[in-house]
Amino acid sequence: MKSIEVWFEFGSNYSYPAVMRLPAAAQKAAVCIRWKPFLLGPIFRSFGWTTSPFVTQKEKGAYVWRDMQRLCARYGIPWTRPTAFPRRAILPMRVALLCADAPWIAGFCQRMMLQNFARDREIDTPQAVGAALSELGLDAESIIAQAQSDGTRAALRAQTDEACRLGIFGAPTFLVDGEMFWGNDRLEDALAWDGRAA
Amino acid sequence: MKSIEVWFEFGSNYSYPAVMRLPAAAQKAAVCIRWKPFLLGPIFRSFGWTTSPFVTQKEKGAYVWRDMQRLCARYGIPWTRPTAFPRRAILPMRVALLCADAPWIAGFCQRMMLQNFARDREIDTPQAVGAALSELGLDAESIIAQAQSDGTRAALRAQTDEACRLGIFGAPTFLVDGEMFWGNDRLEDALAWDGRAA
Repeated sequence: MKSIEVWFEFGSNYSYPAVMRLPAAAQKAAVCIRWKPFLLGPIFRSFGWTTSPFVTQKEKGAYVWRDMQRLCARYGIPWTRPTAFPRRAILPMRVALLCADAPWIAGFCQRMMLQNFARDREIDTPQAVGAALSELGLDAESIIAQAQSDGTRAALRAQTDEACRLGIFGAPTFLVDGEMFWGNDRLEDALAWDGRAA
Repeated sequence: MKSIEVWFEFGSNYSYPAVMRLPAAAQKAAVCIRWKPFLLGPIFRSFGWTTSPFVTQKEKGAYVWRDMQRLCARYGIPWTRPTAFPRRAILPMRVALLCADAPWIAGFCQRMMLQNFARDREIDTPQAVGAALSELGLDAESIIAQAQSDGTRAALRAQTDEACRLGIFGAPTFLVDGEMFWGNDRLEDALAWDGRAA
């Protein structure tokens, strides 16, 4: 079965509609999802940036919030402009990495995204992460403990290094057979990719 | 009749497919085009940049050329990665500003874009601009002389200031009833805009 790697961040606003749309779109295209959480912070710092370009470039930032509102309205997904941006998401990212192959991973990712971009809540806390895991009928305490282990911490750093090595410069980024597609706008192109540009 | 303002630059790679697609797409949508040439250089310098982010961010730059190739293949328009980027385009921009309301303006803009992004030729010369104007059956010498007048030079600077004032941060940018859409990817959304985000 064809597969799509989805490199994403819970703090990334354009990752939000991509993560919300992905499960249904991938099913329709008969493509299997490989979830690849990574941290955008170190990538941005490697460019010499201290935060998101949507914060440092005021004009672009203003546009992006309006674009998000229009996009979410079109997709029929809820949207609230977060009062804190970009939100820290280290703990949920560790859980996503640890459980990337679990059958409930899409539901977890969508819950964390909704907390940030529909409910305007902090997501980098054991409470926020635990609530999402519990809703999915999981043992939140045990998963969070594993997520905070040295092994998971190191694995998320390694996955972020791998993103850097692959030339990933933003999120979401889709990889299909080594072909890179950047941005929520390219989700359909990525799912339809058949190895030929023409 | 509904109208769309198209803020563009002949040196801007994503302005290329937008300018090539625009006349047919606008006709289909029954939308009148208002051509708004402006210079990206001063906008980028206002952000503290010395050139295009596609040059300074190597990873993003590498992606963008592949994305252009795929996009142009999909649209069925020719594509050659320019050996010089971003190309200076001051003279053709002045002509575009001077003649923005002429019935042949779309043909002129498309010819300059094709020189840059399909034939990989310099465009900031009286020869390149003159060839395009002559092909359109126009008096190239007279138009170029007017384009190089102090009045046209000042008008292009003023239009670039106006872009800055409007919060335009890249090209192409579409404005419909004051609503901003950034990038070739948003051309269809801009043409379909009916004043409601939902």
